Amino acid sequence: MSDQTVLFPNASAARCQLDEQGRLRHFLSIEGLPVALLEEILEMARSFQSASGRSTQKIPLLRGKTIVNLFFEASTRTRTTFELAAKRLSADVLNLDMATAATTKGESLLDTLRNLQAMHCDMFVVRHHESGAAHFIVQHVEDHVSVINAGDGRHAHPTQAMLDMFTLRQHFPDFSQIAVTIVGDILHSRVARSEIQALRAFGIGEIRVVAPRTLLPQEVQSLGVVSYASIEEGLAGAHAAILLRLQKERMHGSFVPNESEYYRLYGLTRARVELLAKDGIVMHPGPVNRGVEAESAVVDGPRSVILQQVRNGIAVRMAILSMAMRGRIW
Amino acid sequence: MSDQTVLFPNASAARCQLDEQGRLRHFLSIEGLPVALLEEILEMARSFQSASGRSTQKIPLLRGKTIVNLFFEASTRTRTTFELAAKRLSADVLNLDMATAATTKGESLLDTLRNLQAMHCDMFVVRHHESGAAHFIVQHVEDHVSVINAGDGRHAHPTQAMLDMFTLRQHFPDFSQIAVTIVGDILHSRVARSEIQALRAFGIGEIRVVAPRTLLPQEVQSLGVVSYASIEEGLAGAHAAILLRLQKERMHGSFVPNESEYYRLYGLTRARVELLAKDGIVMHPGPVNRGVEAESAVVDGPRSVILQQVRNGIAVRMAILSMAMRGRIW
Amino acid sequence: MSDQTVLFPNASAARCQLDEQGRLRHFLSIEGLPVALLEEILEMARSFQSASGRSTQKIPLLRGKTIVNLFFEASTRTRTTFELAAKRLSADVLNLDMATAATTKGESLLDTLRNLQAMHCDMFVVRHHESGAAHFIVQHVEDHVSVINAGDGRHAHPTQAMLDMFTLRQHFPDFSQIAVTIVGDILHSRVARSEIQALRAFGIGEIRVVAPRTLLPQEVQSLGVVSYASIEEGLAGAHAAILLRLQKERMHGSFVPNESEYYRLYGLTRARVELLAKDGIVMHPGPVNRGVEAESAVVDGPRSVILQQVRNGIAVRMAILSMAMRGRIW
Repeated sequence: MSDQTVLFPNASAARCQLDEQGRLRHFLSIEGLPVALLEEILEMARSFQSASGRSTQKIPLLRGKTIVNLFFEASTRTRTTFELAAKRLSADVLNLDMATAATTKGESLLDTLRNLQAMHCDMFVVRHHESGAAHFIVQHVEDHVSVINAGDGRHAHPTQAMLDMFTLRQHFPDFSQIAVTIVGDILHSRVARSEIQALRAFGIGEIRVVAPRTLLPQEVQSLGVVSYASIEEGLAGAHAAILLRLQKERMHGSFVPNESEYYRLYGLTRARVELLAKDGIVMHPGPVNRGVEAESAVVDGPRSVILQQVRNGIAVRMAILSMAMRGRIW
Repeated sequence: MSDQTVLFPNASAARCQLDEQGRLRHFLSIEGLPVALLEEILEMARSFQSASGRSTQKIPLLRGKTIVNLFFEASTRTRTTFELAAKRLSADVLNLDMATAATTKGESLLDTLRNLQAMHCDMFVVRHHESGAAHFIVQHVEDHVSVINAGDGRHAHPTQAMLDMFTLRQHFPDFSQIAVTIVGDILHSRVARSEIQALRAFGIGEIRVVAPRTLLPQEVQSLGVVSYASIEEGLAGAHAAILLRLQKERMHGSFVPNESEYYRLYGLTRARVELLAKDGIVMHPGPVNRGVEAESAVVDGPRSVILQQVRNGIAVRMAILSMAMRGRIW
Repeated sequence: MSDQTVLFPNASAARCQLDEQGRLRHFLSIEGLPVALLEEILEMARSFQSASGRSTQKIPLLRGKTIVNLFFEASTRTRTTFELAAKRLSADVLNLDMATAATTKGESLLDTLRNLQAMHCDMFVVRHHESGAAHFIVQHVEDHVSVINAGDGRHAHPTQAMLDMFTLRQHFPDFSQIAVTIVGDILHSRVARSEIQALRAFGIGEIRVVAPRTLLPQEVQSLGVVSYASIEEGLAGAHAAILLRLQKERMHGSFVPNESEYYRLYGLTRARVELLAKDGIVMHPGPVNRGVEAESAVVDGPRSVILQQVRNGIAVRMAILSMAMRGRIW
């Protein structure tokens, strides 16, 4: 990214997610979106899932639209779910692996965007290693283009948060009565940031985080969460544990001692699962490091809803893609 | 593949290719499939080819289905023919190059499969360097998923064998009256294994192999074939020569002396072609090493049906893909 | 490319672009095509663009056809526009990155082509580093296949030239009254060659080139153009400046001193833009090296039609793809 002027998102950037009628236009972060709209996303995702849990196949809502997967960071999993969601809406999909693209090297992000816009692409699904990249892009796209944040630096991963809210709702219709515990590297995790914002927006009864002190943001209290250094205390009576993926590249730094030490302190073992409420569930954005964030038997066990999260990811992304294009298709 | 428990296929694994009604469910090996079903595949492939030899374009049989090309070994050619076959059946195709996929590294094969299943993928077309990989996968997939073996280690490449049977049948309606000679590295070749099983299943009159002794399995007689060290003897009066591709990586070992020596001993020259029956044909799974397995003039000559094999590969794969999904579409 | 017999295009090769009824069959170079047919391409491209400048979405003209992007040289931009054009015509698209394809390595270009033909591919969009590659391919394809030249060595890039004619026509309906100036490395540029042929075919009033003497072909006068060493003189009163991209790999040789020296001598600054006719426009095939071929403010300025060129590229390529298939679809 040769443009140095990437702005960190702020309140006004958050407002740019909606059009003048208050409809979704870009989906960048949970922050700044009305709860009614977030609920509408869950509602529409439900309509895309049949009783069997399978996405209804091939809905022509986005026929003739071109969705670009603009991935500056490799991600087979997230890219694949967006691709499948787009194809089930009958859109054409263009996968651009910007990490390796030859001719676009040396071209600035803005020039790449301008060119894709000129080619009549309708939507950019963006993953980028810099925080704020998706917001930056929104400030420069034409009226006919929508932008979806598929993960930007340490900032946000809002579609992950929405599919987790969808999954939670399937198990706990009344959010006000439940406690949810996020375990792991809160400080560096875009998933954690978006989860906390979503949990607050949906009015979860109690939000807890469990992390080493070095991996907790200083302003953690101001986020409306209660932090625990002990995983046992953090899990006690909770209805859902959301495990964060340990980014192995941080393990050799000062943050995390090593994998086995992490597992000893924060790994979700079968014994620790018993601390959850009796209908408590285990969540993880994937891919799981078995034996690090959780014991393998927990990943595959009866409390795990990890594959249900993946399944829901298609329907939730179908909802977000189609709602963001609504102004231009309906 | 981090799962160490890959089982070598056996009789019970072979049975798992059919559902309770005896219909095709997975296509893993020729072994274990009833001849009537193999004949049905050829029959359906014929229906997909018009009189001109072109595949009928865009049949909506698999509309709304998602087929994943899950290739752990690179193969432009086989991947391309499966992709084209799937698209002509109106399926959505997801190409996953697992040899280079970044985020799935470190994730086990089973976790990758479970995630793709959760995304509602309907079919896995699998190529893998380990023998038995496709059978292993079948033992772990959900009911709604079909698996097609696109080549596993040294074990099987059954779609290649079926398209070769289709090609042979175009030339020789009565299989009981013909002799077919396979030339090359029988020992290490998944193509050879599947060919021999198919030739036997379809009741070919006489099956011969020509290979250096070092490249013949010890139990060659028990395979129901007659082996020849001399290519001249092996070709005499045969109706088809199936040449195997020389895997160049084996050439520097003890198995094969060098390319020119291989050509001298086993290369199909114009002179040797004359030894075939007068309507005898030349086959090769491709890509051909010209001047190694065959003289260039033979590859392009009137006896060669090598491009006809490629052409037939689309129709035969369309037949296999649609028959494996039959239980879920018809 | 293992086939050594690549012929440089000549008059007879040029004639092979048309079928017996004089309709477009392959699109290889501007040279040899009747002006009436070139005008028809622009006419059809106009019909594909709605009043808003957006391509009409999803026209079923090429439904069931398979178009192969056969790129021996990486090019995200050109490949993407062909892919989008093909998909908007409802074709299936197969992207083959021949620069990295594993299994096709060692296979000759002709064998690759023969195999793709056997798979019933209908059209090859070819980019190749050798001049004459597309013509060579045409001499070897079957009757049912069309070939589009997406850039071959230093020879031609005719779809770029056609989209530039389309763009010029939007601004200057009467070509006989205008002067067009091409600035840059004329000698090595396939874009320049095709532009000059197109400008001449369409009867542009005056064609000028501006280049260092080392980057001018010796026979420049015979091309029907007037050459200038001074950019100021070359631009004076011109209606369009077509800037060529500086190939940075040539910069360290003797041809071009360095980027800043190139900019000083040939870069299009705001001051130099003022030398153009008052409605004069600035064109560039992209991607632009800002601060080398042009000042950044010029690239984004009111005279620049660079993004309009990209936009027009989709419609013009849709026209060429569908006209080349006309004999087989209508």
